[in-house]
Amino acid sequence: MPVGTNATVKALDPDDLDEVGASIILANTYHLSLRPGHERIERLGGLHEFMGWDRPILTDSGGFQVVSLGKLRKIDEDGVTFRSHLDGDILDFTPEYAIAVQEALGSDIAVCLDQPVPPHASTRSEVQVATARTHRWAERSLQAHQREDQALFGIVQGGLEEDLRAESTTAIAALPFDGICIGGLAGDETPEQRRAALDVVVPLLADDPRPRYLMGLGSPVDLLDGVDAGVDMFDSVLPARVARNGTLWTPEGRLNLHNARFLDEPGPVQEGCPCRLCRSFSRAYLAHLLRSRELLGYRLATCHNLTFILDFMARIRSAIRAGTFPELQQQFRATRAGTNGVKTANEGRVKSQ
Amino acid sequence: MPVGTNATVKALDPDDLDEVGASIILANTYHLSLRPGHERIERLGGLHEFMGWDRPILTDSGGFQVVSLGKLRKIDEDGVTFRSHLDGDILDFTPEYAIAVQEALGSDIAVCLDQPVPPHASTRSEVQVATARTHRWAERSLQAHQREDQALFGIVQGGLEEDLRAESTTAIAALPFDGICIGGLAGDETPEQRRAALDVVVPLLADDPRPRYLMGLGSPVDLLDGVDAGVDMFDSVLPARVARNGTLWTPEGRLNLHNARFLDEPGPVQEGCPCRLCRSFSRAYLAHLLRSRELLGYRLATCHNLTFILDFMARIRSAIRAGTFPELQQQFRATRAGTNGVKTANEGRVKSQ
Repeated sequence: MPVGTNATVKALDPDDLDEVGASIILANTYHLSLRPGHERIERLGGLHEFMGWDRPILTDSGGFQVVSLGKLRKIDEDGVTFRSHLDGDILDFTPEYAIAVQEALGSDIAVCLDQPVPPHASTRSEVQVATARTHRWAERSLQAHQREDQALFGIVQGGLEEDLRAESTTAIAALPFDGICIGGLAGDETPEQRRAALDVVVPLLADDPRPRYLMGLGSPVDLLDGVDAGVDMFDSVLPARVARNGTLWTPEGRLNLHNARFLDEPGPVQEGCPCRLCRSFSRAYLAHLLRSRELLGYRLATCHNLTFILDFMARIRSAIRAGTFPELQQQFRATRAGTNGVKTANEGRVKSQ
Repeated sequence: MPVGTNATVKALDPDDLDEVGASIILANTYHLSLRPGHERIERLGGLHEFMGWDRPILTDSGGFQVVSLGKLRKIDEDGVTFRSHLDGDILDFTPEYAIAVQEALGSDIAVCLDQPVPPHASTRSEVQVATARTHRWAERSLQAHQREDQALFGIVQGGLEEDLRAESTTAIAALPFDGICIGGLAGDETPEQRRAALDVVVPLLADDPRPRYLMGLGSPVDLLDGVDAGVDMFDSVLPARVARNGTLWTPEGRLNLHNARFLDEPGPVQEGCPCRLCRSFSRAYLAHLLRSRELLGYRLATCHNLTFILDFMARIRSAIRAGTFPELQQQFRATRAGTNGVKTANEGRVKSQ
């Protein structure tokens, strides 16, 4: 899922989203509740109508943003009290409020408020408290949720502690959610730690038909590993953010369009790519636009990276259906071994805004 | 002509330009010679190929930008020596160089280098010297110009001095140019002073079939007055610049989308407008995008104002053909009298970048 924080996937309009192959997008509950306000969006006909996008929208829980962007006042059993990053207002975010916001927005999939904890900055007992609280908030969210036309996903927490992850998976899976989010990852853990956590969660959901959604992962290699571990859904600002910074993804690796050599390259960023950038413009033109900080450059670069990553996911889905996913993985790793790769350690760790 | 300073009309791609009704655009000789460099653009196949726009392009002379943006070193008979606004390099701009740049860019219409003088900050003798030099530069430009597939326009100067304007018009019209630019206006003169200057220039060109182009004018009322005075072509960054600042033009007047009331208005900016903004989005959504400084907002607002002004010009052309231009003028003034108008004094005086 491309991320449309402020009811727009940065630099793109709905026709662009269509063209890059987006079938569902994510919008941020926290941001929209503050600006322009969920009640306002509701009065205007809901988020789909507001942003001109008639396909599915998932809204996140707001939990991550409340903790990472708001100036935190306190977290207690009731919820989170924080200062808005926009105007400094003191606001309460409770599980019931997060549901009310998402019902007002009218997203197709809502997500429960959780208490995320940064794995490396938390003690086991902090993780334990946050995880248990996330479970109680999950039940309160189910109680509060009324819209029958809106799915509701619960969130598994548990940090990097295997037993807490397992306990959380069992607790959340026992509740009548429509899908299971795997939270607290795609942060500062290593790929190996992430995989270890997934290898606890996914086997416990083996016979569970509900979609599994790992929140906040976006680089090709991470997505491939996530799918290999059994995850169905992902979201990330990464492909779009690095695009705006001039990093373009291709099957042969990353291109940094700020490199002076691109100013003289007449070919497209990726030969044969059907995106708006590669169809009509040279590497030289994009390099010029980005250097000149021209708005069109951000749009074209974003179109390319989203086309690239959504096509990558489409090929993964086809391979799974054809029973050739292992071959696709091998092929991908072989290509990467011979190039500078598509992912750096830092890129893989960009969380949603 | 919408203005594409850096080989892009800010925030729009060629499909957008097509959709707003642009049939010709202007690109800036000065800017492109510095970045990415006209020789580079030539190697890449020329400006049309570079920016993916296959319709006409007019390149300006660079004279205005050399004087207004470069840190001026000196102007003498040879040309202008200045420091680049990008990297501080000392560069020479001569009439021959301005032609060479434009031939390398491969625009459809090139314009001679002139020496613009700000009417209110110049003595009569300064205007006289600059105007005479502009004429000598015009002859040198014609000498230097070789591309047969590129038209060349000369520039009339003369400040606000009637006799110098007349002299300049006669001098430039006597040369074998393909069109006549009227320079040194759309600056800090009043509409009355501008009209007085035009009323000197145009009658002297009454039997001249070549197009008359007033450089740098863009508000609806100014365009209407310019056409009434007998001008055929205009360019301006104004409609796009005010759009990015949140000012949207409609037949009923200007809307400042930063006004809080628009956050709750579900209707389009202009009922019945065929532009990308009005077709799909509410005033509320645009107001939200602009407040959130979202890139999509700049694109949608620009699409609207360019659609508005290009449609306005199309209606002027139809009225002229139908013999109903006076009625159109009357109608426009009547509508404006009852509203807050589409133009403020300041807006009318934005020069090209």
